[in-house]
Amino acid sequence: MSSEQAAEPGPQSVKGPRINKGLVIVNTGNGKGKTTAAMGVLFRAWGRDMKVIMLQFIKHTTANFGEQRAAQKIGVTVRAMGDGFTWRSRDLDQSADLARALWEDAKEIIAAGEHDVVILDEFTYPMHYQWIPVSEVIEALKQRPEMQHVIITGRHAPEELVEYADLVTEMSVVKHPYTSGIKAQPGIEF
Amino acid sequence: MSSEQAAEPGPQSVKGPRINKGLVIVNTGNGKGKTTAAMGVLFRAWGRDMKVIMLQFIKHTTANFGEQRAAQKIGVTVRAMGDGFTWRSRDLDQSADLARALWEDAKEIIAAGEHDVVILDEFTYPMHYQWIPVSEVIEALKQRPEMQHVIITGRHAPEELVEYADLVTEMSVVKHPYTSGIKAQPGIEF
Repeated sequence: MSSEQAAEPGPQSVKGPRINKGLVIVNTGNGKGKTTAAMGVLFRAWGRDMKVIMLQFIKHTTANFGEQRAAQKIGVTVRAMGDGFTWRSRDLDQSADLARALWEDAKEIIAAGEHDVVILDEFTYPMHYQWIPVSEVIEALKQRPEMQHVIITGRHAPEELVEYADLVTEMSVVKHPYTSGIKAQPGIEF
Repeated sequence: MSSEQAAEPGPQSVKGPRINKGLVIVNTGNGKGKTTAAMGVLFRAWGRDMKVIMLQFIKHTTANFGEQRAAQKIGVTVRAMGDGFTWRSRDLDQSADLARALWEDAKEIIAAGEHDVVILDEFTYPMHYQWIPVSEVIEALKQRPEMQHVIITGRHAPEELVEYADLVTEMSVVKHPYTSGIKAQPGIEF
């Protein structure tokens, strides 16, 4: 069966390798779906009664989008700790400080091992902007509990992180509705 | 602000276009995250009290993976109607018949307009294998209620569908754990 002919490799068709271990997963690229796919894992893992947490490095603390609402409804923590940072932000130092503070929390959460899945949403940005050293992140990932999955999302994933990760997916834009004058739709994109 | 410098275009930063409409979204490519991102939308839309349904064209009717369990826990219908088809399947005629039967249901569900979001999971395969004509699918999408979102996932998205869709994302494999001898992990990949 060539990969061209194969349907999506699902659990039905996966044969062979036998190692069970926590994965480091990176969803990167300029397309949609990086955070959304992480939300899908959050939801799926919760469906299996696994313990999940999502820390959001960019979204504003006051964010109340579909993902925060949905997570609240099922009792999963989605903690947004950013200041809605973009390069238009007036105070990048504050953005950097917020990211570093959340990373300190993240390290503790990872090391504590109480969660089966830890999602660090839009965490590539603080690394990309060198607010947080990639080497420190990889060190924390190396020290984490063996069965713990960590998912990191965002554009510009640092190369060292891509090298260290187990599963890296690049989401690319083939076609985007903003360019056709259609705005972001609630429930779909946020 | 160049796109290189921009953080993910989120709801905070989206300006401009004003059109509200249902989107046709396609998640394609050989990478992970196509179904998972659709699950993320399902979950997010549910968080906004929107009505969502997922029809799965390949996964076996007996499937009880994380996504089915999670959806059941929140009372969202995820109906798997396939026979776990791959090209190794002995009875491709049966797979084709199952796909066509589910497509008949899907057309009714779409036309009825009771759902804000209709997800047709792994629906590209029946089109790719010419069990269901793409032209018929596009016709059904054109006739659908104006505010309804339809999400289609799977590899080999037909070109006419990509042309018709509003938002198309390609998920590519940068790095995959199967190649390192690590098997698919429950809660993460299924």
